Amino acid sequence: MNTLTSEIEIIKSKTSKINEVDFENLSFGKTFSDHMLECHYKNGKWEAPKVVPYHPITLDPSAKIFHYGQSVFEGMKAYKDANDDIFLFRPLDNCKRLNISSKRLAIPELPESYFMEGLKALLKVDSDWIPKKDGSSLYIRPFVFASGNGFHASPADEYTFLIACAPSGSYFSGKVKVLIEEKYSRSANGGVGFAKAGGNYAGQFYPTQLAIEKGYQQVIWTDDNTHEYIEEAGAMNIFIRINDTLITGPTSDRILDGITRKSIIELAKAEGIPVEVRKITVHEVVAAAKNGSLKEMFGAGTAAVISPISGFGYHGEDFDLPELENTYASSLKKRITDIQTNKCDDPFGWRYKVE
Amino acid sequence: MNTLTSEIEIIKSKTSKINEVDFENLSFGKTFSDHMLECHYKNGKWEAPKVVPYHPITLDPSAKIFHYGQSVFEGMKAYKDANDDIFLFRPLDNCKRLNISSKRLAIPELPESYFMEGLKALLKVDSDWIPKKDGSSLYIRPFVFASGNGFHASPADEYTFLIACAPSGSYFSGKVKVLIEEKYSRSANGGVGFAKAGGNYAGQFYPTQLAIEKGYQQVIWTDDNTHEYIEEAGAMNIFIRINDTLITGPTSDRILDGITRKSIIELAKAEGIPVEVRKITVHEVVAAAKNGSLKEMFGAGTAAVISPISGFGYHGEDFDLPELENTYASSLKKRITDIQTNKCDDPFGWRYKVE
Ligand SMILES: Cc1ncc(COP(=O)(O)O)c(C=O)c1O
Ligand SMILES: Cc1ncc(COP(=O)(O)O)c(C=O)c1O
Repeated sequence: MNTLTSEIEIIKSKTSKINEVDFENLSFGKTFSDHMLECHYKNGKWEAPKVVPYHPITLDPSAKIFHYGQSVFEGMKAYKDANDDIFLFRPLDNCKRLNISSKRLAIPELPESYFMEGLKALLKVDSDWIPKKDGSSLYIRPFVFASGNGFHASPADEYTFLIACAPSGSYFSGKVKVLIEEKYSRSANGGVGFAKAGGNYAGQFYPTQLAIEKGYQQVIWTDDNTHEYIEEAGAMNIFIRINDTLITGPTSDRILDGITRKSIIELAKAEGIPVEVRKITVHEVVAAAKNGSLKEMFGAGTAAVISPISGFGYHGEDFDLPELENTYASSLKKRITDIQTNKCDDPFGWRYKVE
Repeated sequence: MNTLTSEIEIIKSKTSKINEVDFENLSFGKTFSDHMLECHYKNGKWEAPKVVPYHPITLDPSAKIFHYGQSVFEGMKAYKDANDDIFLFRPLDNCKRLNISSKRLAIPELPESYFMEGLKALLKVDSDWIPKKDGSSLYIRPFVFASGNGFHASPADEYTFLIACAPSGSYFSGKVKVLIEEKYSRSANGGVGFAKAGGNYAGQFYPTQLAIEKGYQQVIWTDDNTHEYIEEAGAMNIFIRINDTLITGPTSDRILDGITRKSIIELAKAEGIPVEVRKITVHEVVAAAKNGSLKEMFGAGTAAVISPISGFGYHGEDFDLPELENTYASSLKKRITDIQTNKCDDPFGWRYKVE
């Protein structure tokens, strides 16, 4: 494994776009900070990463990213506390997951130090871009794509790793109504569903559009064989509260091993909430909705944090969730964001100070 | 549906690279012709396509192609006969399939005339690039990708459609040894396997690399649920001859509806070969290999034309196919290439003269 032999090279942008940004009214992932991390794989190895001005990418029309979908990504957030200290949340897990995704897509794995040191160098250069407002953060997008050329359907010989940053507000506005999918699927057994591979997302857009036309915001994916088991949502793992028990499906080669998900499981256990990680059927959720034992459903993911679900559609029927006073969703969301933003202790050692 | 109101605009390249190309020793998809077709989707509509010099593409790092795999493509070939007339093979089927793929990936469909008239204009400008040598052709790559920006996991608002061309020799050299896959899968029920979507190919690279390390060249995909049914290969549909019957699986939402496949079915029927389009199990193929009734296996696709399979591996065992004198593979390959290259009658009306 290569390790960095020297400091990350930094080429600063001559101008800044920061004054054009309204930090009070941020949308999600639409404005980008002044710099990015850039790193190339050539001649069988990853070259040293550099912090460079955010700039357009130029590729040959035959670059394999355009043809064969060889790309993986991550999603992280940086937070700033009252003292202007910068924090990440479990960043090494994103780095490791990027490499798990890369391996499945036949993309060469990145040395961890390139990712971690590169990311820290970038955040220090663009630290003014990290919003301090509650609910806002600097969304961080590490990604790798095939930049080598050729029409032969085989892995590329060159790759590009970039980290770009977007100061962002919340991903969803308000509660989310979801559709439990009965026809389309997100992933196959033995496929790439567990990887954060670009192609997994494109395949969800059309079924999601159909759901949006019917008045839902998101699809809840089920297994491709029986459509009986609840899997996950577009960019969130799913939690279901029946009576006082919090249930989430096990991860598999079809489901992304979410960092928010596994943190929520630990946080809930620490708070004394009964947690079950087990397969959960649509049938069970519908039955619970009908008999009143279904108390909450929420999605969990870096972009959306914890996103409460207001109701779901299944088989032509709509089911509303109750409006509770004290929800697991709101207490767990407060716990996790307090840890992320350095507003409370971090008994788990998840917070990572950038220095 | 938009139709073209005027001639396709042509911007010619000032120089040509054609003298650098050794047309006697062409590899596959590595050298590109002087021009390409370029067409942009903006503000809710496809703009008129133009023939322009082959040139690099410049994109923002947040362009959705890098993140969410929104891309589809086609593969076609142009042939030149002794009179320098240019021919395509069933091109409208590629155009229609591109739109079928686009729809599933939430990419706006292209007006057919943009594709057809654009392609013809490009081929006329680059007609010197069409090889005449037997077994060579101009490989044509139409593709559409998300060029709109943003980190929100939703369809892009801008797309780019390009057609690039590569004078090419054969895709495989010699016979192919394949591995019947028992663990990994290419596609899900309700997924995007029937679409020529970029992500379908990236997902195949790693399992194919593992197969190559074991001494095979290609993977034969099986269904993701039981791994009992033969589906297709990386970029080819699969035909199996047991005794004198030619068998191929039915298409489905997991399998690409290959133009070569459907042409081979018709050609074989016309030649009096008994053809069965039905599900075929690995078990049946292994049993036929053991009792000597398995005569041939071959892949069929535009890039590889008809590619005979020399043997297959399954469950740790290797099975060789017999070396026959007169194979279906060779007679059908001659039939289809003679039609494609205007060396014989075309009773089916598949050949398409570019004029
Ligand atoms: C498909 C999918 N599931 C779940 C998640 C949640 O994962 P994490 O909590 O690590 O962000 C994401 C987003 O990252 C995702 O894309
Ligand atoms: C997955 C897959 N199957 C089959 C084929 C064969 O299709 P066609 O004969 O239309 O080229 C291709 C290549 O186009 C392919 O990519």
